[in-house]
Amino acid sequence: MSLKTLQDLYKEELKDIYSAENQLIKALPNVAKGSTDPKLQKAIRDHLGQTEQHAKRIEDIFKDLEGKPAGKHCKAMEGLLEEGAEVLKEDGADEVRDAALIGAAQRVEHYEMAAYGTARAHAELLGYSEHAKILQMTLDEEEAANDKLTEIAESSVNQHAQMVVAE
Amino acid sequence: MSLKTLQDLYKEELKDIYSAENQLIKALPNVAKGSTDPKLQKAIRDHLGQTEQHAKRIEDIFKDLEGKPAGKHCKAMEGLLEEGAEVLKEDGADEVRDAALIGAAQRVEHYEMAAYGTARAHAELLGYSEHAKILQMTLDEEEAANDKLTEIAESSVNQHAQMVVAE
Repeated sequence: MSLKTLQDLYKEELKDIYSAENQLIKALPNVAKGSTDPKLQKAIRDHLGQTEQHAKRIEDIFKDLEGKPAGKHCKAMEGLLEEGAEVLKEDGADEVRDAALIGAAQRVEHYEMAAYGTARAHAELLGYSEHAKILQMTLDEEEAANDKLTEIAESSVNQHAQMVVAE
Repeated sequence: MSLKTLQDLYKEELKDIYSAENQLIKALPNVAKGSTDPKLQKAIRDHLGQTEQHAKRIEDIFKDLEGKPAGKHCKAMEGLLEEGAEVLKEDGADEVRDAALIGAAQRVEHYEMAAYGTARAHAELLGYSEHAKILQMTLDEEEAANDKLTEIAESSVNQHAQMVVAE
């Protein structure tokens, strides 16, 4: 990592996001399989398709810049996904696990919102107005995905989890 | 970790937050030392004081519940803080490092917003209205800390980083 200029930082941020999105692409099929609420499963599967597009957009942005978006490993996303994987491994009630998975997924969405918000601000400062538009598009989709998870939690998953009584 | 009931999940979430806050308390002094913009340094030092209070509030909440908030290690916060530590280690321009530290700090704030939002929702469902109020208070402070970082980025740090020209 080199941080001599804002351009250096911007490229590092895009590489970090690219690693995060690719880790998420690998993890989401297991999360979908491990969840039981049909609306939640659908939301996760839909978000996998979006995530593939988000990674592709970073590749497109990098065509304007020197080098490739590869070569960085996002440790924050690794930690976030480990927490989700722990939920999947645990014994417990399906309804409670669904509620836990929504919590883990919303942490991931919030991470991405912060990452895209910063990268978009830096793209604007560097005069990459087309990049800024693309990054804002993804940011809007991450926010919408987070709102959808809140809606699913409030409309069904949380109530079902609440009704589970310990054996 | 046991996920048999929503109560189990709620306690796990509080333990995760407690670990996250305590990791942050250890990391923030180094982040303050590694930053150079005076407003940024002040914001980080102020947030350290708040973070100590946030951890204390989780201890207070746990007095209502069985057991102690200890015993869990938040891997997501570990990953988030490793990314911040990488920024501190890098050669580069002070102004660019400040911009990178704001990015890392905003990822941390977003993680905490997601964590407190979920825990507050679960506290409400479980009838812990006093806990919900306390968790909301912290959530409001994390949001305010994030807004403050955006203001510092927009009013000084980003412009200074933008003016750095590679040698």
